[in-house]
Amino acid sequence: MLTSATIDRVVSAALEEDAPWGDVTSETLIPADAVATASLVAREGGVFSGGAVFAAAFRLVDARTRVELLLADGDRFEAGTALATVTGPARSVLTAERVGLNFVQRMSGIATLTAAYVAEVAHTGARIADTRKTTPGLRAFERHAVVSGGGHNHRFSLSDAVMAKDNHLAVLAASGVPLTQALQEALARLPHTTHVEVEVDRLDQIDDVLAAGVGTIMLDNFSIEDLRRGVEQIAGRAVVDASGGVTLATVREIAETGVDVISVGALTHAARGLDLGLDIDLRLPDPV
Amino acid sequence: MLTSATIDRVVSAALEEDAPWGDVTSETLIPADAVATASLVAREGGVFSGGAVFAAAFRLVDARTRVELLLADGDRFEAGTALATVTGPARSVLTAERVGLNFVQRMSGIATLTAAYVAEVAHTGARIADTRKTTPGLRAFERHAVVSGGGHNHRFSLSDAVMAKDNHLAVLAASGVPLTQALQEALARLPHTTHVEVEVDRLDQIDDVLAAGVGTIMLDNFSIEDLRRGVEQIAGRAVVDASGGVTLATVREIAETGVDVISVGALTHAARGLDLGLDIDLRLPDPV
Amino acid sequence: MLTSATIDRVVSAALEEDAPWGDVTSETLIPADAVATASLVAREGGVFSGGAVFAAAFRLVDARTRVELLLADGDRFEAGTALATVTGPARSVLTAERVGLNFVQRMSGIATLTAAYVAEVAHTGARIADTRKTTPGLRAFERHAVVSGGGHNHRFSLSDAVMAKDNHLAVLAASGVPLTQALQEALARLPHTTHVEVEVDRLDQIDDVLAAGVGTIMLDNFSIEDLRRGVEQIAGRAVVDASGGVTLATVREIAETGVDVISVGALTHAARGLDLGLDIDLRLPDPV
Amino acid sequence: MLTSATIDRVVSAALEEDAPWGDVTSETLIPADAVATASLVAREGGVFSGGAVFAAAFRLVDARTRVELLLADGDRFEAGTALATVTGPARSVLTAERVGLNFVQRMSGIATLTAAYVAEVAHTGARIADTRKTTPGLRAFERHAVVSGGGHNHRFSLSDAVMAKDNHLAVLAASGVPLTQALQEALARLPHTTHVEVEVDRLDQIDDVLAAGVGTIMLDNFSIEDLRRGVEQIAGRAVVDASGGVTLATVREIAETGVDVISVGALTHAARGLDLGLDIDLRLPDPV
Amino acid sequence: MLTSATIDRVVSAALEEDAPWGDVTSETLIPADAVATASLVAREGGVFSGGAVFAAAFRLVDARTRVELLLADGDRFEAGTALATVTGPARSVLTAERVGLNFVQRMSGIATLTAAYVAEVAHTGARIADTRKTTPGLRAFERHAVVSGGGHNHRFSLSDAVMAKDNHLAVLAASGVPLTQALQEALARLPHTTHVEVEVDRLDQIDDVLAAGVGTIMLDNFSIEDLRRGVEQIAGRAVVDASGGVTLATVREIAETGVDVISVGALTHAARGLDLGLDIDLRLPDPV
Amino acid sequence: MLTSATIDRVVSAALEEDAPWGDVTSETLIPADAVATASLVAREGGVFSGGAVFAAAFRLVDARTRVELLLADGDRFEAGTALATVTGPARSVLTAERVGLNFVQRMSGIATLTAAYVAEVAHTGARIADTRKTTPGLRAFERHAVVSGGGHNHRFSLSDAVMAKDNHLAVLAASGVPLTQALQEALARLPHTTHVEVEVDRLDQIDDVLAAGVGTIMLDNFSIEDLRRGVEQIAGRAVVDASGGVTLATVREIAETGVDVISVGALTHAARGLDLGLDIDLRLPDPV
Repeated sequence: MLTSATIDRVVSAALEEDAPWGDVTSETLIPADAVATASLVAREGGVFSGGAVFAAAFRLVDARTRVELLLADGDRFEAGTALATVTGPARSVLTAERVGLNFVQRMSGIATLTAAYVAEVAHTGARIADTRKTTPGLRAFERHAVVSGGGHNHRFSLSDAVMAKDNHLAVLAASGVPLTQALQEALARLPHTTHVEVEVDRLDQIDDVLAAGVGTIMLDNFSIEDLRRGVEQIAGRAVVDASGGVTLATVREIAETGVDVISVGALTHAARGLDLGLDIDLRLPDPV
Repeated sequence: MLTSATIDRVVSAALEEDAPWGDVTSETLIPADAVATASLVAREGGVFSGGAVFAAAFRLVDARTRVELLLADGDRFEAGTALATVTGPARSVLTAERVGLNFVQRMSGIATLTAAYVAEVAHTGARIADTRKTTPGLRAFERHAVVSGGGHNHRFSLSDAVMAKDNHLAVLAASGVPLTQALQEALARLPHTTHVEVEVDRLDQIDDVLAAGVGTIMLDNFSIEDLRRGVEQIAGRAVVDASGGVTLATVREIAETGVDVISVGALTHAARGLDLGLDIDLRLPDPV
Repeated sequence: MLTSATIDRVVSAALEEDAPWGDVTSETLIPADAVATASLVAREGGVFSGGAVFAAAFRLVDARTRVELLLADGDRFEAGTALATVTGPARSVLTAERVGLNFVQRMSGIATLTAAYVAEVAHTGARIADTRKTTPGLRAFERHAVVSGGGHNHRFSLSDAVMAKDNHLAVLAASGVPLTQALQEALARLPHTTHVEVEVDRLDQIDDVLAAGVGTIMLDNFSIEDLRRGVEQIAGRAVVDASGGVTLATVREIAETGVDVISVGALTHAARGLDLGLDIDLRLPDPV
Repeated sequence: MLTSATIDRVVSAALEEDAPWGDVTSETLIPADAVATASLVAREGGVFSGGAVFAAAFRLVDARTRVELLLADGDRFEAGTALATVTGPARSVLTAERVGLNFVQRMSGIATLTAAYVAEVAHTGARIADTRKTTPGLRAFERHAVVSGGGHNHRFSLSDAVMAKDNHLAVLAASGVPLTQALQEALARLPHTTHVEVEVDRLDQIDDVLAAGVGTIMLDNFSIEDLRRGVEQIAGRAVVDASGGVTLATVREIAETGVDVISVGALTHAARGLDLGLDIDLRLPDPV
Repeated sequence: MLTSATIDRVVSAALEEDAPWGDVTSETLIPADAVATASLVAREGGVFSGGAVFAAAFRLVDARTRVELLLADGDRFEAGTALATVTGPARSVLTAERVGLNFVQRMSGIATLTAAYVAEVAHTGARIADTRKTTPGLRAFERHAVVSGGGHNHRFSLSDAVMAKDNHLAVLAASGVPLTQALQEALARLPHTTHVEVEVDRLDQIDDVLAAGVGTIMLDNFSIEDLRRGVEQIAGRAVVDASGGVTLATVREIAETGVDVISVGALTHAARGLDLGLDIDLRLPDPV
Repeated sequence: MLTSATIDRVVSAALEEDAPWGDVTSETLIPADAVATASLVAREGGVFSGGAVFAAAFRLVDARTRVELLLADGDRFEAGTALATVTGPARSVLTAERVGLNFVQRMSGIATLTAAYVAEVAHTGARIADTRKTTPGLRAFERHAVVSGGGHNHRFSLSDAVMAKDNHLAVLAASGVPLTQALQEALARLPHTTHVEVEVDRLDQIDDVLAAGVGTIMLDNFSIEDLRRGVEQIAGRAVVDASGGVTLATVREIAETGVDVISVGALTHAARGLDLGLDIDLRLPDPV
């Protein structure tokens, strides 16, 4: 899970974006001493993710608010379930509401969509993985949500694993050295902990790449038939990663080809925020 | 448009997220002295937005890269159009590629979706507006994209306009003072530049709110029939803002009720990234 | 009110500026286990503002300090009143003292000066408003202080309201289109929540501007006589904002012309820090 | 002078505060291709300070703007003098105007006020020094301005020099060890580069402090007569620093007592911004 | 290589630490219009690293300075070699000198020490790798320096590879499930790109770990004899990583046992800064 | 001591560097509800420094962890001593371990090395001082550690004291004015709190510098014999600071020459991290 240091940095910035000089509505219309008790309630079913981030939004608006999480990240819930409770000064609860919801809706939305993909392939050995198509600034949060949904993470960044694509292979090809050898020589410069994945567009590229000893071969935009052939050809000598426009409608068939990993950009870039709401009960101070 | 100060801060953070300790793939496979010439090409038609942000990504990876924008934000383009050119050290161009694309795809996607909504209502007097349902940290960028698409911005944050909702009205109602009077008294505390919008759920709430002299009345989740009645009832005495689950399928009918503004959360939270790609031409140094 | 996120960011930076590598005086002269009890005491009367910011200074030097606020922001006090109490390790209390005082003196000074202006115009319908002539980095704090003093805020920034001045009008005038029409066309591009204020230098500019339907007309550097004429001419069709070198000596007369708003740059750029002091009672550990 | 790193950090933050999502006025009313040529002109005479900071504001809004400084920091000028020229896209020049002016007005105001104090004491050996009563976040800028005006800086922060006051002396006094000895023992723990200044409230405190070998004795809130006696008593064995409510009306008499340094909090906390303006000449693109 | 965004952020912070309110020595003693030409000269031989970081220090003090790098990172040099030239205002060159040198000395020191280790094992198949024992805040810079010296990087952080140690294995052991099976089940939850390394303290742990299919086995603090046995036992089925108090005196013998990787914390935590100096030639302006 | 604001900023950045997207090992292998009790134990004797920084690492990973410090900074300890205890969720304790240790090992290493130097000169009047050869970003932490070890700090930065070296003197010499006079004139521009130290390379430079009234003369790279002569020649009229390649082997002899300060760059740039370890006791939840 993310450190408090990371969560506080990102949520503070979001709050300063959404309330740079306070919340004029609440300050104008809500008495300073009104108190709110609120429930985070699911308007639809799904998978929970982002509890600690939701809680941070309220604490970082006002240290006097209290958030109790009723579910853990990764828990499934039905529509109508209370996911967390919040209490505190009413103005502060209203000020933090949208930022807190934005994060937990987005993260639970990703977790829920991921879970749907995972369910489609549960009868196979394939795993569902995310991609780098995440929101700038929020990658660690969105990756966490994928795991909450039962998915797996792919490489986090350009720094932590190799993903060689057409441009990279073209450069090796132009070197005059046979591809397998060129690739081997290049990969020897990498950290021994760096996984190497190579993307191929055609079946006839596989053997040269495989001979170089790479960890994963990504079959990009292959037909179902070619995926099956690719799996056979690779025959367990590398992880097989299928990618390219995968949807909920196609993922099952892809998984049944025997691939090991299915990379789904849609998990993060196409997930919609889950419909979660904050039911707020305001208590006004007694008139004197 | 955003200042360079803002663009550089946000894009720098995105680059540090995506390449915290460099791009292992390019550094391993691409010679240090290879040069790249690249075109940002539209794989589908749309409306351009985010040119300056795209350019910043390359400059902030490596000050030696050069980006020329061929379109201005807000320009329409067909599939196949070249939108910008990039030249520079091949490793740096490849390192910046994903972050640059992420921003310009997201922003052009929002602009394009906005333009679709705008086109649906062009024969009416209604304008299409965004909401606060934006990505944490990217609100200024996403709002800019809405304008590129011909849409209008709504309030930016909790700080710059009042949006009174059920909770706020309930507090006023509980005060024992008639709603109109309570609202008037509260609003007198606001800056004279602060616009006041009040959300109502039923037609019978309109008169009390209107009497308080608010600037905009938001009709939330009204039927088409009730929207029409609301417009009649308000009769030009306030701006009428329709909101609640607006889609491309329903926006035309809503606009035709005579409302002034249609707030569409989907512009930012449901836009998909536009399909833009970077066609890269690598030139290797001559062998000696 | 400002979020904790904002207060902590700004106060942390101030502390790092004032004690980048500690407080050599206290560390040299005060035993590590000495304890301080301190009172924030008014050396002169005024209006309180900045309590939460004062408290943050002590907490961010040392989490073991405790601050109790005895007044709320906006409360009036006489010379000699205790405004807050602080307890904690003596070194930490002494280290935080100046930064804590800097903020609360500045903010209470602004609140107190604002209250003086407000008192001058209390018998009229005019409100006292701040301007953008604030200290770089502290605008949200200074605006909060103006409200503590009974004043109103003007627009916060270049982003949240239009203020068209001579340069802007000159551009419209040069377009060949009549000013009213040019203004109307331009303003139609704005968010419906964006208030439009236009500054005029002469009475004869008012009609064209008014015809465009703007929200506020600023009468800049008008004589008392011309202010009175301007109010008559505008006749309630726009808010009237008087500005230009307003002082405590002139504000009453200006208010009596019937203007709605008086913008006073002096509230923030000419307020002096209020004379508040920290009376510290040090308790040394018993000798063993 | 400040590094570019410092200037850019502080000015970027100021710009993001003043135009968090752009400048709605300029974007609405000024054509994107209009060009501005502007002069920074003195509306009153004074001493220039902050040229590099002024220039940074325009560059950080838009890298295409160009600023030429016509005076160096510390130069004197008459009303009507052009201090700098700016050229660039008109929208960007207008967006940066207020932030650029805020800094240069504040800094030149401090430099000018400092120069007035310095002129009062020019016939004596006394120097005018600033204090820590600076604006949070802007201390380095304000200190630079004091030097531009011919003043001297005092210690920058709690970290770089000792300033022992009543509380500190009281602790030493309570230790049971004679003050001189207690002070000597404590000061021996300091860096050899750390200057020690001790504030005294009465003449009878001087001898004990002096015997401890301190660098400077601050005579706080002394009468003119007592200042003269203090100077005689100290007799060159320490720097003599006079402080406490010094004004332009009293500074000459204080200087003539023979003190070495006069600490004037007013230099920074009571300086008003100098009246500098930006005369802008907009050139519209030719109609096609 | 690191992005400009990363280099500028870290070097700016270092400059603000070393010259928070300017360089009093240069500003006092060097005329503002003096110009400096300087050479970065090696006082001892070594391997260069950090050229771009060195250059940034001068640019971020003053954009008018120019740095030309005469060597590329990774190049070897003898004592007396000029590595870079700097020209610019003399004050700025002197202000940036120490921060620029600090980085390039530290990075070249690490590169040079790494090269010494690499030379010791060049006749074997072993590679020299760094560890996480880096300086807080400078890991990316220090890792880059290791590569400049011909070494390899190990995992960057806790996030990008698994390193299971005694505590982790103890937990698995306590689960009641056989270690191999427990490890397999746990590892199945990881990203397919995440390399798994397990640290063992005794030869008898190897088989269980190996059976779980891990990528690397770290033999921690093994005797030379046990390293040799470990290599035989593993027999190419996993990468073998030797660690624990490796020194220049012992690394050759360790490499000759046949291990694949030797992790050397000393590369970063025990490297001394290389002796590089800036020879400065000041040119004073002609007297008028 | 450093403020919480400074500690939290630096430690948060270190944690984000070491665990940018969590700790994959602990999250994979340790149950979420396992609890850890840990002791920070000395593997070798030394002097403690950095307790508050160590504690912050755990708190900033997870606010539920608790750290109790058993020693104060500056306390001596033997091998085997427990220095602090930590309790909290096991995953969080393991995640924070390396960053917490990195700081406390580095700081205690500096304190311990400093104490060794101090012990060598304890029979003399000389003090051991640090230099600016510190780690970029960590200077305040490393200086604090020097004090923990009984050493003294030298100037912190370029901003807080003058250190004139050969380049500066050469400029003065070139001015045509006698050095003493040129130096006096220049120094008169400094704050009265700014200590002036001048570095000389030869005995014959001393008199001119001394005549200008400087605070400290640094004898740089002098032989023992020349140091003794320098001390005699200066005769108490300035602090004498010896510097240049001082080691534990030479420091005693240097101190016995009668110098006042010995500046030792090695305190910070050559200290090795002290061998401190975290003994962790994991408690797994009971099986249900």
